[in-house]
This record gives sequence, C-alpha cells and structure tokens, in this order.
Amino acid sequence: MEAVMIIDILRRAKANVVVASVGDNLEILASRKVKLVADMLLDEAANLSYDLIVLPGGLGGAQAFANSDKLVNMLKKQAESNKPYGAICASPALVLEPHGLLKGKKATAFPAMCNKLSDQSFIDNRVVVDGNLITSRGPGTSMEFALGIVEKFFGRPKALELAKVMLFVH
Amino acid sequence: MEAVMIIDILRRAKANVVVASVGDNLEILASRKVKLVADMLLDEAANLSYDLIVLPGGLGGAQAFANSDKLVNMLKKQAESNKPYGAICASPALVLEPHGLLKGKKATAFPAMCNKLSDQSFIDNRVVVDGNLITSRGPGTSMEFALGIVEKFFGRPKALELAKVMLFVH
Ligand SMILES: [Cu+]
Repeated sequence: MEAVMIIDILRRAKANVVVASVGDNLEILASRKVKLVADMLLDEAANLSYDLIVLPGGLGGAQAFANSDKLVNMLKKQAESNKPYGAICASPALVLEPHGLLKGKKATAFPAMCNKLSDQSFIDNRVVVDGNLITSRGPGTSMEFALGIVEKFFGRPKALELAKVMLFVH
Repeated sequence: MEAVMIIDILRRAKANVVVASVGDNLEILASRKVKLVADMLLDEAANLSYDLIVLPGGLGGAQAFANSDKLVNMLKKQAESNKPYGAICASPALVLEPHGLLKGKKATAFPAMCNKLSDQSFIDNRVVVDGNLITSRGPGTSMEFALGIVEKFFGRPKALELAKVMLFVH
C-alpha cells in the first residue's frame, strides 16, 4: 500500500519514478499478498542516479531491503553525496538505523519499531523531514509522506493542490 | 491506489479477497502506470459468489468496467439478490449510474463526476452507505471507504482497531 501511494502520488506530481525490485523477479509480493510488478530489477536500477531514493515499509520488504548490499550501498552513496533519501514504516528502523543512515538525524518509524531508533525525540510526528532525510510511520501516514516529498521537490502549492484534487483534504 | 488500499485493508480484516482482472491478462496497468497482478480473470471470478463486489476507480478502469457485460451482469445479480456492492471515484458515475445500479439510492462519486448522479443529495459525504450500496469519492477517501466496508462486515470496533494500527487515526 505504501509503495503504491508513493509511486502514484509522485507520478501525479510529474516526478519520473522508477520502481525497482530487490528480488530476482520483477513481480513483487507485497504486504497482504498484493502483487505488484516493478519497472526494473535493482541491478539495472543501480546504474542510474536519483534525486531521491525511497523505501516503502512492510516487515518482509524492510528485511529484504536490509539484506540487499546493493541497495544499502546505493543509500550510503546517496547520503554521502548529500542527496535525499527516505523510508516509512518498518524501513527506517530495520534498514536505515542499522546501516548508520539515521546518524545525527531526527526520524520516525512504525510505532512498534521506534524503540530501535537511537534518537527518539521526533518519533511522534507523522512525517519528519531532517535535511536530506524524510521518514514516516506507516500505511495511514503514507499519503502525508508522499505529499511531504512532493512539497520538498515541487513546493507546497503543488502538494496542497494534489491533496485537494485527491480528496485528502477538503 | 484505491484498489490496493481496499485489498490490503480488507485482508487485514481477514476478509477473503479475490482480485479480478476485466482484461484478458492478469497484469493490470492501473492509474499512473502502477502495475498490479490480479488473482484471476473475471471469467473465472464470475463463477464464484461474493458477499461484496467492489469497483475501484480510475478513469480507464471505470470505462473498462462499464464495458464489461460480464461484470455488469454480476453487479446486477448482486443487487437483485440484495447483496452488497460498492464503488469509488469514477466508478459510481460511469458504471453504477448508467446501469441503474444507483436507482433510489444515496451515493457519492469523484467530485467532477457527481453531476452524472441522478440523486445528488449525499454527494458531499466522503463515504455513503445506503443499504447494500457503499460509495466513496476518490484516492484520498479510499482508506475511509475500505474501513467503512470493514465496519459494515466486521463491526465498528474492528474498523477502529485497524484505523489505529494503520495509523490512520491517532
Ligand atoms: Cu480514482
């Protein structure tokens, strides 16, 4: 759900979104057996450079992300180059934190996993933007997370326009 | 997005959800080029009976639904048997209304399409339940729509529990 919300909303903002699979198959079995098809495998996606790399959540997904050296290296390079990256739900705690990608940053995550974050001062926020890092809490905050990304890259008026058109706000 | 929200949330409530494709391929190109894979083709799905049939939105999707005689017949049978059915976004206006499936019912739809509804007295509501019919407005109301379905079938405490766990409400 989080993946689809982010992909759909960023594409509405006219972002060029690449959906990559960390598995060896384009078909992704997401949370609750929702079946998605990626645009490319991570092996191919790793050859491109990105204005932003985002990790959706889901326990299975987050574990697969954490185990992908290729993805973790992409994220580390992104952070070292001072370029934006983000994660939601289980991923801030299971992927970013253990690989040092939250170091010195305010962040949030799925409530049951926030105890894994070394800095817990901002965990109660639904979306946290700290410099190049953007994090959020779970399925119910994924629209705000996606709109937060739209705001960061395309400005607040665009984010508010989408929120209205999509009926997220009245 | 609407399809995935509904599938994911209903499965969280332990509903047995079948995702059917009205095309002749299991792979579905959804709104904003999100690629989903259905569980079965509608031809096969039509052989089963359902406690509820739900149509997600999207202009392309709604047009394909309206053009599927098989789906329209399933919906008509569902209505005649006094069994629940629902639609969101473009689908109430493009599928249910022209096939007489909103007759005598309060309903809502995507704002730009509400002029097609013969009864407009409830269009400002984000989710409308009128007997066996449940309708809603668009992407930003799809979580409320799915939770409304959960409430109808599994009770309000279950819907509230999911809303909390998913961080839709605090
Ligand atoms: Cu829609």
